[in-house]
Amino acid sequence: MNEKVNEFNEYRSRMNEKILAADNLVIKRLFNLDTNTYTEGALPVKTKEMLGLVASLVLRCDDCVKYHLQKCYELKISTEELFEIFSVGTVVGGTIVIPHLRKAVEFWEQLQSENK
Amino acid sequence: MNEKVNEFNEYRSRMNEKILAADNLVIKRLFNLDTNTYTEGALPVKTKEMLGLVASLVLRCDDCVKYHLQKCYELKISTEELFEIFSVGTVVGGTIVIPHLRKAVEFWEQLQSENK
Amino acid sequence: MNEKVNEFNEYRSRMNEKILAADNLVIKRLFNLDTNTYTEGALPVKTKEMLGLVASLVLRCDDCVKYHLQKCYELKISTEELFEIFSVGTVVGGTIVIPHLRKAVEFWEQLQSENK
Amino acid sequence: MNEKVNEFNEYRSRMNEKILAADNLVIKRLFNLDTNTYTEGALPVKTKEMLGLVASLVLRCDDCVKYHLQKCYELKISTEELFEIFSVGTVVGGTIVIPHLRKAVEFWEQLQSENK
Amino acid sequence: MNEKVNEFNEYRSRMNEKILAADNLVIKRLFNLDTNTYTEGALPVKTKEMLGLVASLVLRCDDCVKYHLQKCYELKISTEELFEIFSVGTVVGGTIVIPHLRKAVEFWEQLQSENK
Amino acid sequence: MNEKVNEFNEYRSRMNEKILAADNLVIKRLFNLDTNTYTEGALPVKTKEMLGLVASLVLRCDDCVKYHLQKCYELKISTEELFEIFSVGTVVGGTIVIPHLRKAVEFWEQLQSENK
Repeated sequence: MNEKVNEFNEYRSRMNEKILAADNLVIKRLFNLDTNTYTEGALPVKTKEMLGLVASLVLRCDDCVKYHLQKCYELKISTEELFEIFSVGTVVGGTIVIPHLRKAVEFWEQLQSENK
Repeated sequence: MNEKVNEFNEYRSRMNEKILAADNLVIKRLFNLDTNTYTEGALPVKTKEMLGLVASLVLRCDDCVKYHLQKCYELKISTEELFEIFSVGTVVGGTIVIPHLRKAVEFWEQLQSENK
Repeated sequence: MNEKVNEFNEYRSRMNEKILAADNLVIKRLFNLDTNTYTEGALPVKTKEMLGLVASLVLRCDDCVKYHLQKCYELKISTEELFEIFSVGTVVGGTIVIPHLRKAVEFWEQLQSENK
Repeated sequence: MNEKVNEFNEYRSRMNEKILAADNLVIKRLFNLDTNTYTEGALPVKTKEMLGLVASLVLRCDDCVKYHLQKCYELKISTEELFEIFSVGTVVGGTIVIPHLRKAVEFWEQLQSENK
Repeated sequence: MNEKVNEFNEYRSRMNEKILAADNLVIKRLFNLDTNTYTEGALPVKTKEMLGLVASLVLRCDDCVKYHLQKCYELKISTEELFEIFSVGTVVGGTIVIPHLRKAVEFWEQLQSENK
Repeated sequence: MNEKVNEFNEYRSRMNEKILAADNLVIKRLFNLDTNTYTEGALPVKTKEMLGLVASLVLRCDDCVKYHLQKCYELKISTEELFEIFSVGTVVGGTIVIPHLRKAVEFWEQLQSENK
């Protein structure tokens, strides 16, 4: 597995565990709800992950973008589709989104290099 | 047509005309680009409008939400699908999004009452 | 009861009902979670409502501010305490918060005029 | 004077007075600081008001935009210059800024109709 | 003292000195005002620091969160109380806040490891 | 050239190339529009770069701030003028902007050390 992707996932898992270990009921339920949000429903999982990605992009949260990029990668979203999601996010959110786009493209490359 | 929907569209068109009449090239090209963003591509128009809607919702822009709701309505997105878009936006953006959700649901009803 | 306060609460309740009637499980659970967030715990209810208020203020959500102002009013938070919460929110969030402060002060007066 | 402009200024003054009457030292000093920020310095007042306007626009604060538009109008900033400020704000902040641009253009017209 | 905490404080102090050395009166007064905001008043210092923390969290400013965490640590706020502040911030601000929660929890651990 | 400045520019160029190589028409046109926004018009280039800087600062985008700082440096904007731009951004955007101010001042020093 790509080292950078691995590092990101490892930190994320480790800290999530610590957060959940604090045993705050509201936070635990929000984590749970987060998972449920992206399950199959009237909309397919793929569409929901795209929605999560564009929402993360316009809110300019690099880690959230990375998380959804990973999901999109697993769901076999194509690079062409990805850039159309990026185009919506960048037009809606403005050039202020571009630095986050750079990091997103870098992570997408790291995801692709994983299996080579 | 529903009066509130009509009012919204009328104001939007009237002010857009004034903005474009000022003949600022950058702004005119951005308006153009905005239109191009949502045309059919690797992703269908329907998905792109959903992306535009969720991006507008988490950025809490009521008028942008209304615009995309109207497009979603024309594209026959179901109320069940709509609420799944809302669920992604509200979980990602938090309870701060809920007041905008109220206005979105109100406008969705106005759109539906149009054709009755 | 003050007319403006009444109007705000009536709209809020009516639209919340419609949102919940759509029966989207994620949104229903988020509404539930929202309620649980402000219950007595290691921190008293009063402190939690103050936290909710300042968070709403810096995120510049007028309706969220109004909701928490009402709770603060019921919990007998004094005007002096209130303005210290406002001072934190305005210094952290900048002068961009001031227009929301104006509306907050207006609503606070409406709450006080209720019982006269 | 234009009725809408007048209404905006009257509400602003009235609420500012109430805020200052609460006698919170931090808030009073922030209001003072706000005034000092836009005084002549290494940069001319005109430039500072333009900076205040674009900052208000990308942060999507309609009332702040109106306030700075009024200052820009008094300082004889031309409509062509104004639209270049708008173009920076809209490109940096994205199409999410456009609804605020509509309101800004409407207020600019109201300012101009004042003296006719 | 914990190395990471030390590094954070050292960078912060060093850059603050440079900012103040530039001798811009408005910025100097804002720094001053910032300090005054969190002094004892109608609300105790502890509550004010909690307000500063939750405001920083929902605005997703990692460095601001770290600063207030340090103050909360000095004021002997318990981990249980801390997570209730986090719960308000995360519910109000949404899952977009979670990556900042991870960094906050990491810093909180570093603060605790200081004195071991 | 200063190593940190160089590193920033190198990463920026490399990733921009990758983004443009994806050949998404909307994104390519937005990049183009971005360039056009800051060309001489009714307002001089210098003023436009100042506007871009303050917009980036209040939106708290470190990379955008760095980009405009570099332009301001090339355009011979003085440190005194710079701090007045910073003062507008910090008063409008609040103390939440201060951590970004620290990074901006650090980068400004790196720009100045380039030619020594």
